[in-house]
Amino acid sequence: MRAVDLIIKKKDNLALTKEEVRFLVEGYTNNRIPDYQMSAFAMAVVLNGMTDHEITELTLAMADSGEVLDLADVVYPVVDKHSTGGVGDKTTLTVAPMVAACGLPVGKMSGRGLGFSGGTIDKLESIPGYRTDLTTEEFKRTLKEHGIVLTGQSADLAPADGKLYALRDVTGTVQSIPLIASSVMSKKIAAGANAIVLDVKVGKGAFMKTLDDAKALAEVMVSIGRLSGRKVVAILSPMDEPLGVAVGNAMELAEAVEMLHNRGPEDYRYHCVHLAAYMLLLGGMAKSEPEAVAMAERSLIDGSAFEKFRELVIAQHGDVSVVEHLDKLPTAKYVETLLADESGYVESVDARIIGETAVDLGAGRAQKGDKIDLAVGINVFVKIGDQVQIRQPFFEVHANDRVKLHAAMERLKEAVKLSKYPVKKPPYFHGVIGFEG
Amino acid sequence: MRAVDLIIKKKDNLALTKEEVRFLVEGYTNNRIPDYQMSAFAMAVVLNGMTDHEITELTLAMADSGEVLDLADVVYPVVDKHSTGGVGDKTTLTVAPMVAACGLPVGKMSGRGLGFSGGTIDKLESIPGYRTDLTTEEFKRTLKEHGIVLTGQSADLAPADGKLYALRDVTGTVQSIPLIASSVMSKKIAAGANAIVLDVKVGKGAFMKTLDDAKALAEVMVSIGRLSGRKVVAILSPMDEPLGVAVGNAMELAEAVEMLHNRGPEDYRYHCVHLAAYMLLLGGMAKSEPEAVAMAERSLIDGSAFEKFRELVIAQHGDVSVVEHLDKLPTAKYVETLLADESGYVESVDARIIGETAVDLGAGRAQKGDKIDLAVGINVFVKIGDQVQIRQPFFEVHANDRVKLHAAMERLKEAVKLSKYPVKKPPYFHGVIGFEG
Repeated sequence: MRAVDLIIKKKDNLALTKEEVRFLVEGYTNNRIPDYQMSAFAMAVVLNGMTDHEITELTLAMADSGEVLDLADVVYPVVDKHSTGGVGDKTTLTVAPMVAACGLPVGKMSGRGLGFSGGTIDKLESIPGYRTDLTTEEFKRTLKEHGIVLTGQSADLAPADGKLYALRDVTGTVQSIPLIASSVMSKKIAAGANAIVLDVKVGKGAFMKTLDDAKALAEVMVSIGRLSGRKVVAILSPMDEPLGVAVGNAMELAEAVEMLHNRGPEDYRYHCVHLAAYMLLLGGMAKSEPEAVAMAERSLIDGSAFEKFRELVIAQHGDVSVVEHLDKLPTAKYVETLLADESGYVESVDARIIGETAVDLGAGRAQKGDKIDLAVGINVFVKIGDQVQIRQPFFEVHANDRVKLHAAMERLKEAVKLSKYPVKKPPYFHGVIGFEG
Repeated sequence: MRAVDLIIKKKDNLALTKEEVRFLVEGYTNNRIPDYQMSAFAMAVVLNGMTDHEITELTLAMADSGEVLDLADVVYPVVDKHSTGGVGDKTTLTVAPMVAACGLPVGKMSGRGLGFSGGTIDKLESIPGYRTDLTTEEFKRTLKEHGIVLTGQSADLAPADGKLYALRDVTGTVQSIPLIASSVMSKKIAAGANAIVLDVKVGKGAFMKTLDDAKALAEVMVSIGRLSGRKVVAILSPMDEPLGVAVGNAMELAEAVEMLHNRGPEDYRYHCVHLAAYMLLLGGMAKSEPEAVAMAERSLIDGSAFEKFRELVIAQHGDVSVVEHLDKLPTAKYVETLLADESGYVESVDARIIGETAVDLGAGRAQKGDKIDLAVGINVFVKIGDQVQIRQPFFEVHANDRVKLHAAMERLKEAVKLSKYPVKKPPYFHGVIGFEG
């Protein structure tokens, strides 16, 4: 087999066999196939697509390119969740303890933020001492003992995906449903998931800008699940405006913990309760959606979710007093509020602008490896559809630098658009794909 | 400007500006843009195409990536010819001296054979001593003194094309009209051509398999000529069966020299006379096609073309006695004839099979840099449309190795297909593009 012939096959829009996909992925992982062949192949995939069978083979080949966690002797089933990334999306921090509190173990590896999209691991590091670099053994032990573990992604998992992602980033081949879907799913499968709840974001603050694209991505990932023997449910959720109020690492952690006390914005609460419910359903803990939703809500009301989070923080060596007293979290030097300069109905609250402004404040990374400031961020007090009065607060900017503060205040003026006429609120979810019953 | 943004632009099927094309070509030539970005870009071009303006900018940028010969102080105009490559295509060897004998200088750099397609430079090296590695100064001096020069392509000409071609070869991006057209034209423009006659081959033994593809390629190259201020005429000629009789380096040289004595197969003669005529027309040596054809034929009849070839061989240090006594050319140890095993009408004489068999005998290269055997080859005694009798000779195989000889005899049995019913002869040319008047 020669790589060039497989590139030509894909260029000619033919489907590769399982053996051909494995040859490419294994060759690329072992450096037998050079970057210049893989990037040509990736571009052919971007422009010609792949069948669901090819995407599944690509996913499994990338999962198999490194260590594949087998958690069967630790817990079963392993239910994971994944968000395609958005602004203010701190869902994992609340959902993981909710689900674990209901008795379904959650062993999860999360990522760091890049660009306007935040990452769970950064947010967790707002808790002094919290370890995000567990070894595989520590991961398994924590999961077994506490029914919950939340750590960074191991470099040994799906190395082909890591290598291919870095190449795609510099060769214009990021935007491709087959490549995005196989990248997400390969990491989840390598991390040992038997069932996965996907949160596919769509809108200004998401990678998928249209509902059609998000649906197509969700359907492909559900199909990979079906073809690879994993249960997959994908939720399509709007990401035109940020989720909840807080954007920024420590601020989001605080909001997530408040929600564990059953306090906080309604959109975020709905999101957490329903994501947790789908995880409970996939994990066989509930027989119907209403039952699962009730279980999830109960974990917030009875304090068991918060208790599970405390247990997690202690297990991973974090300073639990910070979680008990949120005012101990890092805070920024300057806090300034941006007010509405007219009255009206909120037509848009641009998640992309808010996410980028947070990055500029230091809350995120423009490039991989950039240092971030855990304390800074933005509170967003308006939601699409709200009726607002002049001088009502729109945003609260938390900054550690005066120049950055002023730049953020200026930039955020563009983030809200008002209308003279009432505006319909967006739905919490656009739909659910892959859920039967 | 960033290469990744230009790749994305082409992925999104947008046209690049002149500056953007130059940025890519210059960056690639200077190793600032890595292979993995260029191969992704090439694949995007293969699948999304380029406008004629983009192709012209790509051509000129590649021509400008190295030395550009300025022959204005040597001769004017400089008329070049180029064939897209075929089996038994020894046209340059006959046409260049014909045209030069008519008073129009021909300074030409040719290539070596690769795959089933032969190369002029290999054929010329059948003449002991003949130098194919002239320096630019030697090239100019020979052209000025003798009105003819035929040498190998200098590495200094269009280095971006050489680099990109090598990359395309291993990344499945060879088959692309914009990339083929710009590759051909960049070398011709860098070699100083003001006018170019292109021989675009179509059929089993050519890179273009369909007349539509060949026409599209021809039209793009004529368009590059128009947009870059060069006169370009493209002939579309069939390459389902080999041109003339001989396939193999010394054997083809002999056939080309025989034609300079006005002896040889009619298809080859027609080809030479008309290609020479278009060169004479573009060079302003004749006012009409009939006049140009008559000039070209006269050079064969009066011996002036042969005399010019002798002059060329002497000027480039070749052993002219070989040209005067063709039996001095290298010969093969074994010669065996394949006979028709039934009677009928010739439906096909597969140029691809014959070309590949010649490569297997040692006449060509499977890979760049392979050694070749100048003596071996195949004489092809049948043409499509011929009526043949049982035991009539089809092929004469010249080999230096018994095993290869037998393999060739076996393979060639598949090369001819007979029909019970009369078969129409193919035209000499399918058409001419870019010629007005």
